[in-house]
Amino acid sequence: MTHDDADPKNAEISGAMPDGMRGLMVGFPPPAQSQVTLANWQDPPFNRWGFQHVRELIPSHPIPAGRPAPLPAGPPLGNPGVVRVDGSTATLEDVLDGTYTDAFLVLHDGQVVAERYDAGMTAGTRHLLMSVSKSILGCAVGVLVGRGLLDLQAPVTDYVPEVGGSGYAGATIRDLLDMRTGVAFRETYTALDAEVRVMERSMGWRPAQPGDPAGTYPYLATLGNGGPHGGEFSYRSADTDMLGWACERVSGVRVADLISALIWQPIGAERDAEITCDPLGTAIPDGGISATARDLARFGQMLVDDGVAQGRVVVPAGWLDDVRQPEPGVREAFASTDNEYVLPGGWYRSQFWVIPGAGGPVLVCLGIHGQLVYADRAARTVVVKMSSWPDAQNATYLLDTLQSCAAVATHLSARETAPRTR
Amino acid sequence: MTHDDADPKNAEISGAMPDGMRGLMVGFPPPAQSQVTLANWQDPPFNRWGFQHVRELIPSHPIPAGRPAPLPAGPPLGNPGVVRVDGSTATLEDVLDGTYTDAFLVLHDGQVVAERYDAGMTAGTRHLLMSVSKSILGCAVGVLVGRGLLDLQAPVTDYVPEVGGSGYAGATIRDLLDMRTGVAFRETYTALDAEVRVMERSMGWRPAQPGDPAGTYPYLATLGNGGPHGGEFSYRSADTDMLGWACERVSGVRVADLISALIWQPIGAERDAEITCDPLGTAIPDGGISATARDLARFGQMLVDDGVAQGRVVVPAGWLDDVRQPEPGVREAFASTDNEYVLPGGWYRSQFWVIPGAGGPVLVCLGIHGQLVYADRAARTVVVKMSSWPDAQNATYLLDTLQSCAAVATHLSARETAPRTR
Repeated sequence: MTHDDADPKNAEISGAMPDGMRGLMVGFPPPAQSQVTLANWQDPPFNRWGFQHVRELIPSHPIPAGRPAPLPAGPPLGNPGVVRVDGSTATLEDVLDGTYTDAFLVLHDGQVVAERYDAGMTAGTRHLLMSVSKSILGCAVGVLVGRGLLDLQAPVTDYVPEVGGSGYAGATIRDLLDMRTGVAFRETYTALDAEVRVMERSMGWRPAQPGDPAGTYPYLATLGNGGPHGGEFSYRSADTDMLGWACERVSGVRVADLISALIWQPIGAERDAEITCDPLGTAIPDGGISATARDLARFGQMLVDDGVAQGRVVVPAGWLDDVRQPEPGVREAFASTDNEYVLPGGWYRSQFWVIPGAGGPVLVCLGIHGQLVYADRAARTVVVKMSSWPDAQNATYLLDTLQSCAAVATHLSARETAPRTR
Repeated sequence: MTHDDADPKNAEISGAMPDGMRGLMVGFPPPAQSQVTLANWQDPPFNRWGFQHVRELIPSHPIPAGRPAPLPAGPPLGNPGVVRVDGSTATLEDVLDGTYTDAFLVLHDGQVVAERYDAGMTAGTRHLLMSVSKSILGCAVGVLVGRGLLDLQAPVTDYVPEVGGSGYAGATIRDLLDMRTGVAFRETYTALDAEVRVMERSMGWRPAQPGDPAGTYPYLATLGNGGPHGGEFSYRSADTDMLGWACERVSGVRVADLISALIWQPIGAERDAEITCDPLGTAIPDGGISATARDLARFGQMLVDDGVAQGRVVVPAGWLDDVRQPEPGVREAFASTDNEYVLPGGWYRSQFWVIPGAGGPVLVCLGIHGQLVYADRAARTVVVKMSSWPDAQNATYLLDTLQSCAAVATHLSARETAPRTR
């Protein structure tokens, strides 16, 4: 394995603090005002350091890599123009500069055509993926379904009877995958009393408070019901952790090792990824994976290659076809919600966001604070962006980023069809 | 990078529980009685799982590896006879079988002549080194002294004035290296009120109690004085953490990154190591490193090769010469203590134990619960043993292990001088 921070030329010690993180965790020990802690790591400015150092704040499982697949360089992307969501014109780099970009990488036809890092990141640095993690688990579910270990139509209580008294009673694996359970769970990051906050404390992402359930699985069993299963799409991180529980139960293998065996090694990742775990040792697939930009790009490449990597099927092709062309009702379950205002014409399927692209549906993996994989099969383009937005959600940043991704795909597609001139 | 758990033939998922850990952390979530937690991971039987999964219990820093150095196979060691400390005869494998061995590896002339794993370990598994960590930090100190960044005769308060009001006032870097400070610190693992227990809570190795200092560095500043500096050897883990603080202060680099740049990458480690960190983000060099047996063997090989690895000087040769032949007083500071009963004729220098061997002094790195590196320069032999002894200290296990190491060295030396017969 080789990676930048192991290069002999970097082997000399150096105390320089990277740009973008000046003042954070400086000194031995750092003074109180510059400390990044379990209490503040998700808040600005601390998140800029925190998202690259999650394992230093929270216990974690490794997700072992295997033999690295090549990631060859291609002709540089350049700096295409972008029309921002407010109608103003900009360049790709303008958008990246203005949206707290820690890492940015573009693959075209499997070749790296753009790669840049900021805030101290290198090609070897793992960055928190937040809910991009969900799409990775979703692919592992696809493999388990393909092997007959999970039945999409079965109620989750067939696998995890412990939640029979919770709001999950009656919800199917399909409901979980598409976030169409009726479970009462508010994913409101700015509301201190929302369920997502209690869950974050139960899973060790924030300091525990008296009365919190200890561990994600005990927490899931406490959730109530807020409506029928199979209805509208409503984004619930808890549904992904519930999926993870079912995966562990049917395979007998921990989520970290499942992802390693079914996804991370097959795609040819070059560095071990990692995933935070709770006080019971349970990994957190709803948002706890950290990985390098290059390995996340390999994941994206597998998505545009119909589930194949290194000449072998990783995720059954039919699984991704279904994401791009789901059964009736999936689009409607999305169109009827506020999500339609942000991602018009989109849907959510099997832990992926899907949006219309110039050449067909584009798979998008999204995580709060600006984490993204944009996998455009028609344009044979993968865009990875890792960020440290000050806020969990920011529609302008998101939409300008998606505009940029579309511009990149268009630029790359136009370039290859243009006549070659000297 | 290649390692066993990344081998394609192992990429299939499997829920089998390794021998030796049956019943620990089994189930999703594991039932209470099989849970390994921050409160029990150092106690039997939980430590057998815990020592291979420290990062899942405690936050950690990576210690990045670099380009791996080859570790070629040599002619198998076989199973030499051993005379146990009680006078009975046994074989090497008998001793290994009877001392909770998780990993065992022998290098002769840099070639692997024995390698075995138990309790679920593989060549890719990181195991807690406990105080073997100290010898690794000690070598990093040797590099910093060689570069003129640390002065052995300078008081530690020249580098860390924060401890000017503590028992460390007046102690030199040399006193810390040789554990001859007069600081009041009891390393009594079985005494619940010993200083080492409070330190473990401050550094995040056990659940915190009200009134504990938060973090190792604040804790070190609270220690008092129990006698003059430069006197008898007395094993104090706190002295190593104090050294780590001085290293960070003079280099401006975190201990994990220092060890990576100065030791881990230069020896050609093949996997990232890791080191636990406390709530202030401070790494714990007194015992917090986890590494593979193969990488620890590479460290041992550098010791028997006079500080050289891959043709380059890692640790100044004079540094290790001094460990083997220290100034007057070092031996006496040891001979006058109870340590003489366990390791007769030995001494402690620069974070190494040194014992007499058939061909000259042998460097020994020791950690509680049976962690060991045995580096016999004369016999060109390195022995690595990782264990999960039920007790922190066990003189019989330790001495039988050292007898085994000596038997291995003698066997290997005899083999190479014997006439070659067909």
